[in-house]
Amino acid sequence: MADTPFPVLGILGGGQLGRMTALAAIRMGVGIRTLSPSPAGPVEGLGEALVGDWTDPDVLRAFAEGCSAITVESEWAPAEKLLPVLPKGVRLFPTPQTLELIRHKGVQKTTLAQAGLPVAAFELCKTLAEAQDAAERLGLPVILKRYEGSYDGYGNASARSLEDFALHWDSLAGDDGLLVEAFVPFRQELSVLVVRSDGGEMVCYPPAYTEQRDHRCHAVVVPANISAVTRDRALEVARAAAEAVQSVGVLGVELFETQDGAVLLNELAPRPHNTGHYTIEGSHTSQFENHARAVLGWPLGNPGLRVPVAVMINILGYRSAPVSSTSLPTALDIPGAAVHLYGKREARPRRKMGHVTVTGTDPEEVRRLAEAAASAIKL
Amino acid sequence: MADTPFPVLGILGGGQLGRMTALAAIRMGVGIRTLSPSPAGPVEGLGEALVGDWTDPDVLRAFAEGCSAITVESEWAPAEKLLPVLPKGVRLFPTPQTLELIRHKGVQKTTLAQAGLPVAAFELCKTLAEAQDAAERLGLPVILKRYEGSYDGYGNASARSLEDFALHWDSLAGDDGLLVEAFVPFRQELSVLVVRSDGGEMVCYPPAYTEQRDHRCHAVVVPANISAVTRDRALEVARAAAEAVQSVGVLGVELFETQDGAVLLNELAPRPHNTGHYTIEGSHTSQFENHARAVLGWPLGNPGLRVPVAVMINILGYRSAPVSSTSLPTALDIPGAAVHLYGKREARPRRKMGHVTVTGTDPEEVRRLAEAAASAIKL
Repeated sequence: MADTPFPVLGILGGGQLGRMTALAAIRMGVGIRTLSPSPAGPVEGLGEALVGDWTDPDVLRAFAEGCSAITVESEWAPAEKLLPVLPKGVRLFPTPQTLELIRHKGVQKTTLAQAGLPVAAFELCKTLAEAQDAAERLGLPVILKRYEGSYDGYGNASARSLEDFALHWDSLAGDDGLLVEAFVPFRQELSVLVVRSDGGEMVCYPPAYTEQRDHRCHAVVVPANISAVTRDRALEVARAAAEAVQSVGVLGVELFETQDGAVLLNELAPRPHNTGHYTIEGSHTSQFENHARAVLGWPLGNPGLRVPVAVMINILGYRSAPVSSTSLPTALDIPGAAVHLYGKREARPRRKMGHVTVTGTDPEEVRRLAEAAASAIKL
Repeated sequence: MADTPFPVLGILGGGQLGRMTALAAIRMGVGIRTLSPSPAGPVEGLGEALVGDWTDPDVLRAFAEGCSAITVESEWAPAEKLLPVLPKGVRLFPTPQTLELIRHKGVQKTTLAQAGLPVAAFELCKTLAEAQDAAERLGLPVILKRYEGSYDGYGNASARSLEDFALHWDSLAGDDGLLVEAFVPFRQELSVLVVRSDGGEMVCYPPAYTEQRDHRCHAVVVPANISAVTRDRALEVARAAAEAVQSVGVLGVELFETQDGAVLLNELAPRPHNTGHYTIEGSHTSQFENHARAVLGWPLGNPGLRVPVAVMINILGYRSAPVSSTSLPTALDIPGAAVHLYGKREARPRRKMGHVTVTGTDPEEVRRLAEAAASAIKL
């Protein structure tokens, strides 16, 4: 075999997902180059952190030159602008086509429904009147979803009456309207991470139980407390979703388990996902390593748990201020707490600043420790 | 509580131990600055990697300025030269006193023996004649050990006859002679990692079985297959050794289990240790994180295993050449293999280039997978 130098992985974006992907790749000897539109604490000091206008072809060309493969850490990173300047042989995953299918929630839902996958009833509505008509058909309450740019509860609203529509329409509707979705009275929210290679090989992490607070991921518990039938169905649906959007790398698949144990697809994220942070400590191969492997064209690793139970709790900012390490020792004193802080320079209320993972055997004890450590940190 | 910025950890040295310490500290939001005498692949791209004459006071002053705490990744790093230029309030651990006690094997053995700790019988010998006399008293064979600069079998020789002494004397003896040590017919070699804070708090990792090939660590298996009595004694001796040298941070304690289950101290290393690499995947808190915590003055983490069994296998270079990633995918294809490559640009025969850790439940299966992955990598 011919000698091949160690690859350089390019990451478009400078947040915590890029940071943790970089750390996993560095461990395998991979070089890192990031590009973000403004100085970004999480990736500073990891490889070569470029800052520039990531829509500028010259900036993108300089970034891509010398990379072996490029990925994004957000579905909003302008990967499609790389295509015209991408040097021959440089891999780019997920593809801009996959990102396009996922960015627009109307296109995403339609793609999944057309693939025969279970989703809540929905309609794409161009006008307020169309949306109100749709709500009559779907039955109130319904969820109104902005097509593009929504995340963590921003860009969604529930409407309990037709009057609610007028309240939300202006802030949520784009030129092409918005998505009206039937409300699903679910038992619990689940997440499955699928890793897919460009050859179509797939591995799945076990379904995780995810708990939101104020529309934001608060806790993830693995394995989820579900029946074998629900587990198998969740994995089947997640794999089919990855096929439907032809993802390469990690696809975060958010699911509802309904009251009767059925599974509905909620939303997709074509990148490492907050519900997979526990994999750094809990799994044989982390989601970040597997994302890097898939993007680089390397074999996928074992997504199985190395531990009986893992719990991840997010650390959110509580004020607007430069970060302070004052509270960190209290958290580190909690036995077994793996504390991850993302290197963001400024805290803001509810900003994701870090997370804590604890592993063990007793789910209640593990959760108690993880909550204690996460809540001890005041950023 | 007053706000405290996130600390910067300075690391004197640019090898894999510095690299893995940096990666663990970065995860907690800690900034990294390294100083090494020549460009060093393992720490390049991690924080601020300074290159300069690390015996030059001006270089050391510039390095130390802005660090919150400084550590070494090798007992040979000139920490003592930092003392005159160390800004007020900057922590430096392990202390130069601890390093001095450990660097010189005659001083190290004498310190341990004077603390009442079990070591093989030894004599400090200034001349060839003294060494031959010592061998008569200790009984052949004996081990001849260079006082300073020996590692991984370099600097040691076994002498089976008095004639052997003349062969080895010139290459091993310094101005003050060498160490002559009784040969210990051990059952197995063990290692205990003690982490000690500057306040004297200590935590210990469970005793590990360590296997050498050609005087170099090949495999580490945790937990070691020993009796509860031997385990307790190994931990007791290791803690006492840490007290004796007043280590702060990780102290690697190499031990012999003798044929009758007794424990003898072999050698100490005042830093993260090759026998503790498994802790990244296998332990609640890795040796690298605990080293950083101790040096920074933060609480020590849980050294317990998160898994039933962990096996680490070193990856050594097999030729002199720039590193090539060609063989890596074969290793990554082995389920559950966590492959660590150190970012060294050039391989050399027997140079430590990386390691593989596998965790699981069946020691034989875990070892088989780890050996397969490590031997698949040709660097």
